Amino acid sequence: MSTQTRDVFLTMGPALGQVEVRVERAAHLDYPIASTVIGDLVRAGGKRLRPLVLLLAGRAYPHDPDLLVTAAAGVELLHTASLVHDDTVDHAGLRRGKPTLNSVLNSGAVILVGDYLFAQSAMLAAATESPRVVGIFAATLADICDGQLREMFDAHRLDQSRQDYERRIFGKTASLFAGSAEMGAVLAGAPESHVQALRGYGGDLGMAFQVIDDVLDLREGSQRLGKPAGQDLRQGTVTLPTMLYAARLAPGSAEADRLAAVIAGESDDEREIERLIADIRSSGVLDEATAAAEAFADAAKARLAVVPDAETRDLLEDIADFAVGRRS
Amino acid sequence: MSTQTRDVFLTMGPALGQVEVRVERAAHLDYPIASTVIGDLVRAGGKRLRPLVLLLAGRAYPHDPDLLVTAAAGVELLHTASLVHDDTVDHAGLRRGKPTLNSVLNSGAVILVGDYLFAQSAMLAAATESPRVVGIFAATLADICDGQLREMFDAHRLDQSRQDYERRIFGKTASLFAGSAEMGAVLAGAPESHVQALRGYGGDLGMAFQVIDDVLDLREGSQRLGKPAGQDLRQGTVTLPTMLYAARLAPGSAEADRLAAVIAGESDDEREIERLIADIRSSGVLDEATAAAEAFADAAKARLAVVPDAETRDLLEDIADFAVGRRS
Repeated sequence: MSTQTRDVFLTMGPALGQVEVRVERAAHLDYPIASTVIGDLVRAGGKRLRPLVLLLAGRAYPHDPDLLVTAAAGVELLHTASLVHDDTVDHAGLRRGKPTLNSVLNSGAVILVGDYLFAQSAMLAAATESPRVVGIFAATLADICDGQLREMFDAHRLDQSRQDYERRIFGKTASLFAGSAEMGAVLAGAPESHVQALRGYGGDLGMAFQVIDDVLDLREGSQRLGKPAGQDLRQGTVTLPTMLYAARLAPGSAEADRLAAVIAGESDDEREIERLIADIRSSGVLDEATAAAEAFADAAKARLAVVPDAETRDLLEDIADFAVGRRS
Repeated sequence: MSTQTRDVFLTMGPALGQVEVRVERAAHLDYPIASTVIGDLVRAGGKRLRPLVLLLAGRAYPHDPDLLVTAAAGVELLHTASLVHDDTVDHAGLRRGKPTLNSVLNSGAVILVGDYLFAQSAMLAAATESPRVVGIFAATLADICDGQLREMFDAHRLDQSRQDYERRIFGKTASLFAGSAEMGAVLAGAPESHVQALRGYGGDLGMAFQVIDDVLDLREGSQRLGKPAGQDLRQGTVTLPTMLYAARLAPGSAEADRLAAVIAGESDDEREIERLIADIRSSGVLDEATAAAEAFADAAKARLAVVPDAETRDLLEDIADFAVGRRS
């Protein structure tokens, strides 16, 4: 963790602690097995970036701290619910280095547990008593589903444009960052132009975050990520690095054929996949994709000029730096 | 369809038609395959009882018709979303006599399509701009998930109390009828005591509805229901008729052993299941369970005394009669 991100967590620690309490409480279920696994998942936690963005977006304006904490817990639970369903969709066995719910419970239970977490997150959004926040929340859930459906229906196809990719990752990932920033600003009564600027910040931050996720999936070994490298390739999901790599290959070359076979799901030979990952790593496209993520992070930071409080602006900038600088 | 229910649909037809339009629009997806199957599911329709209850609950008070239609479309979509996930949980192949989504799409797509429908229903709830309605909506979703999780975790166990059963079916089914009536009354600005009476009506109606569902599962052949008879037994789901039947058997008798084996999921011999269904049918417990449903319907009707408009009261009574009188 860099100095900057340590600052963010030091400053926002107490509020994030309250978010944790709300999330834990909402994730409690009467069924011991399900409750234990959900508890583990929630505690293993991610970086809590979405609640952090929400809290910070509201911080520069005269706000009710408890309202921000309530909504922040809602977005974290929405994120958790969507991970639970996404792991089931992907049949993933590991998430954050821990067994996923669907490797412990049957798929029916996992669907219902995900739904239950959705319900809890919706209750937190409703508890803000802000119709606009509830509207953002519901629209964000629709965007997330749309992005995930696009990922599924676009899988195994190399004939995708960068626009297709960006639309997909906006829905899947950036929409919740955008919605989080927007909700925080709305709840704190920020002027409409600030709400839009902060929403834009969240969206660009989320894009940077997902592009880096796609780079890390190829760059890092399984130990650091807590899941096998090259998962996207194995699932036939075409990401920015893969697109950039594909564009460099001569049609009909051995490399092009290998890539096509893996993406089409026609090759599950582990040596071929390892070879493809090695080729992608040495091709330079991971740096090129990282540069694209940095451009999104810069765009995110540029949106922050309107934010009246210098410290809040700095902390939001640090999060953008963290999103592109992280290794896991 | 009886004379009474024809009256309900004649009177409420135009408003229900507007609900259909809203539901269809919200269920539209960009992906042709998913969109077709969802469209079929939505059009095959059920009886639209939940939107009907919502519309009627608001009808007796000075109301904004469009607001009621919006919320009514929301509850129908919430119901549809929960059916989509429930069929995946149950691995059901038929619903309303048509192939289920999960017999046409892979389970991952079905999960996401269900989530998408949840999102659309939440957007409609949010569009009412009533924090209280959104709160009821979210709490109802939580109740539904709780009921479905209970059904799953209570499966294959004969040692359940009638209280366990009632709690479970309240969550799974009655909660949405209760929430629908409550939302309609709240949106129309009914006095709080009326809101509570109408919520109570919806809850009792929903209990009657589910008990009859459980009776029909055993009484009717596959043709009328559009799914095989005895599905609950096959899934190890213990319902009121089964509980009443179990209570009549001598411990250690051949009948008791057969029931125990089927519920435990240890017998998938089709002749044994057919024999059990025949025994349950001839035991008289289906009439006893039907009487329990009638008691719930009577309790529902008794709650209607406060409703100021006689025609609305009559129509709500007709729905209660329909819930227990239906054959499918």
